[in-house]
Amino acid sequence: MLKDCIENVRKTVPLVHNITNYVTVNDVANVLLACGGSPIMSDEPEDVEDITAICGGLNINIGTLNQRSIEAMYRAGAKANALGHVVLLDPVGAGASALRTNTAVGLMEKVKFDVIRGNISEIKTLALGSGTTKGVDADVADAVTEESLDAAVKFAKNFAEKTGSIIAITGAIDLVADANKCYVIRNGRPEMGKITGTGCQLSGLMTAFVVANPEAKLEAAAAAVCVMGLAGEIGWSRMQDGDGNSTYRNRIIDAIYNMDGETLEKGAKYEVR
Amino acid sequence: MLKDCIENVRKTVPLVHNITNYVTVNDVANVLLACGGSPIMSDEPEDVEDITAICGGLNINIGTLNQRSIEAMYRAGAKANALGHVVLLDPVGAGASALRTNTAVGLMEKVKFDVIRGNISEIKTLALGSGTTKGVDADVADAVTEESLDAAVKFAKNFAEKTGSIIAITGAIDLVADANKCYVIRNGRPEMGKITGTGCQLSGLMTAFVVANPEAKLEAAAAAVCVMGLAGEIGWSRMQDGDGNSTYRNRIIDAIYNMDGETLEKGAKYEVR
Amino acid sequence: MLKDCIENVRKTVPLVHNITNYVTVNDVANVLLACGGSPIMSDEPEDVEDITAICGGLNINIGTLNQRSIEAMYRAGAKANALGHVVLLDPVGAGASALRTNTAVGLMEKVKFDVIRGNISEIKTLALGSGTTKGVDADVADAVTEESLDAAVKFAKNFAEKTGSIIAITGAIDLVADANKCYVIRNGRPEMGKITGTGCQLSGLMTAFVVANPEAKLEAAAAAVCVMGLAGEIGWSRMQDGDGNSTYRNRIIDAIYNMDGETLEKGAKYEVR
Repeated sequence: MLKDCIENVRKTVPLVHNITNYVTVNDVANVLLACGGSPIMSDEPEDVEDITAICGGLNINIGTLNQRSIEAMYRAGAKANALGHVVLLDPVGAGASALRTNTAVGLMEKVKFDVIRGNISEIKTLALGSGTTKGVDADVADAVTEESLDAAVKFAKNFAEKTGSIIAITGAIDLVADANKCYVIRNGRPEMGKITGTGCQLSGLMTAFVVANPEAKLEAAAAAVCVMGLAGEIGWSRMQDGDGNSTYRNRIIDAIYNMDGETLEKGAKYEVR
Repeated sequence: MLKDCIENVRKTVPLVHNITNYVTVNDVANVLLACGGSPIMSDEPEDVEDITAICGGLNINIGTLNQRSIEAMYRAGAKANALGHVVLLDPVGAGASALRTNTAVGLMEKVKFDVIRGNISEIKTLALGSGTTKGVDADVADAVTEESLDAAVKFAKNFAEKTGSIIAITGAIDLVADANKCYVIRNGRPEMGKITGTGCQLSGLMTAFVVANPEAKLEAAAAAVCVMGLAGEIGWSRMQDGDGNSTYRNRIIDAIYNMDGETLEKGAKYEVR
Repeated sequence: MLKDCIENVRKTVPLVHNITNYVTVNDVANVLLACGGSPIMSDEPEDVEDITAICGGLNINIGTLNQRSIEAMYRAGAKANALGHVVLLDPVGAGASALRTNTAVGLMEKVKFDVIRGNISEIKTLALGSGTTKGVDADVADAVTEESLDAAVKFAKNFAEKTGSIIAITGAIDLVADANKCYVIRNGRPEMGKITGTGCQLSGLMTAFVVANPEAKLEAAAAAVCVMGLAGEIGWSRMQDGDGNSTYRNRIIDAIYNMDGETLEKGAKYEVR
């Protein structure tokens, strides 16, 4: 039940350590608070092991990576693994630069990730060792559509099996898969793409959901995708004449803040394949 | 008079140098502008001495510290002390990691702070050389409540005497103390804890208030706490159905922007012990 | 036609690489999305050449510069020049510290900028090798006013001729000049100065406009200034009782999001000298 997933977050207030980009970090923090979690940020190698040790989960986002933060990602990832904490990778811009691709691939070799979440282009880069990323959006030709859905589901399951991680591919249609099961989710609105960082926000949210639901990680990851997309729908319904992407950002976070289990159950649009 | 404290900020437009975390920095800047001050940010060691020299105050926040910014904190602090500027320490997460605790303690040894502002857990860490911090929130068992108030007031005064700094401990009940006098403030709302960085925002605001009121630093620090808490109350009163923590953040900053001396005098809830 | 300038942005979705300060970066990203562009941020020297290569323009903002990001600015600037991309410099705080002044001047020696955009104090610092900057606001004595307009226009044209760059000087009256022609723009509102980063936002916006209009760079830069100022006017007209600078920030970005060519043509207030 998705309902349980969100209620467990609100009950247990999971503390999430974020090593994330400075573009969207404030929104990530407010989304974590909105959903019932608690955020802490640290990207200094000498600091991250202590910080991650007091948390329940670690969210690694390579959006504005640098040599210092890359070292912090490796150290925090190793520590979180040693402690059995939930670890998520958001490979922002993998495929757009050698450093980003190599960092994401290198992290996957050294750190065991519970979840890898990105757009189709980023995930393909990791899976195939190639691919192109225009900025942080998925290449249109490679978008997950109704036509390409069967192939995309198969790809997600295969990559999940290969990595042992839950694979979340977000876009117009979202996929959340392990080796055997794939949630196909149709919440959300295209206008969410006009707000910076809805993907980063989802990664933070998803980390909290997986931490709070250790016995149902796949469902928790899917629930987080439904929450974000449904918040995008609710937020849009509250838009007034003259409002734009900045107000929409606020209304989405507000909708997460106000979301309860009933609303989530009723509004979630998914099928399992 | 609290009224004078805020009016002096608006009249003199204090320029505040902030070495602060990248999570909440944008809100800190907008809060400084809202209250009538002017913000500038710099955390590069080669830059901070020049920048702090043209300012009236320095706000050091260790929220996302790194080796570079730590060096910048020491250099800026020394320069600000040499010039007789107001310096404030916000020891975010002291107690949560060795680096944070050691940095805060080390700064207190080398830099003379006019004000140290944190939650009870952070301040206890500094005072006792120990303590635990769950993220950046005060440990619930150590919260300042009506029951623990007498002991907390005594603790704040003692630590103020020991350090020669004004000690501001914020939470459900806020304390602002020097060795002899403690403001006990009951403004604010619990929902402010669901917004990232209200503490960081207060530290920026407080620095501006102390700079603008050199003859009444304790009262100015207390006035800043009242402004923030009262803005939280006014902002909450403007919340509409469906609003959440993201909109609340905007409404609080808006309330600071619109606050005048009369509103502050009427709305401030404090006693002196 | 200004109308064409904004419509070209919406049609071509220019990808802009930003090396910018962490104070206002989120707003810069949302403004780029609002106007129809697409943002990507990277400030790691090992990353920036790959990132800038896939973009159409590069926006360099020295607002929270550090030794790492300065190296990234030089490397990205050289790469962007080699590829014939649009490059813009926003010399935040030039004149306020030796490092900022030297970095801006050094970048101008090594990188060919299509546009340099700052306040009068910053631009004077670059032009004259001296000047004072109080924070990031123009020195009041040196503001561009109706009285000082003739001299300021001449100064802007001269500096444009000397540098071969379009010079954009923003304040109460905005100037956008090349060696022969100067747009004098009177859009905007003084309350925009109470929001952090409207200048940074404009620099991002302007980069996208110049990228999308390679045959009309001067007009495109002027169009960007009109868009920002007009959005400030439209945003202000939507303010309600109790709103302040935080809500105003959202309304300005919203107004950019909703601006079409007709609105821009009707609302732009400029003359050419």
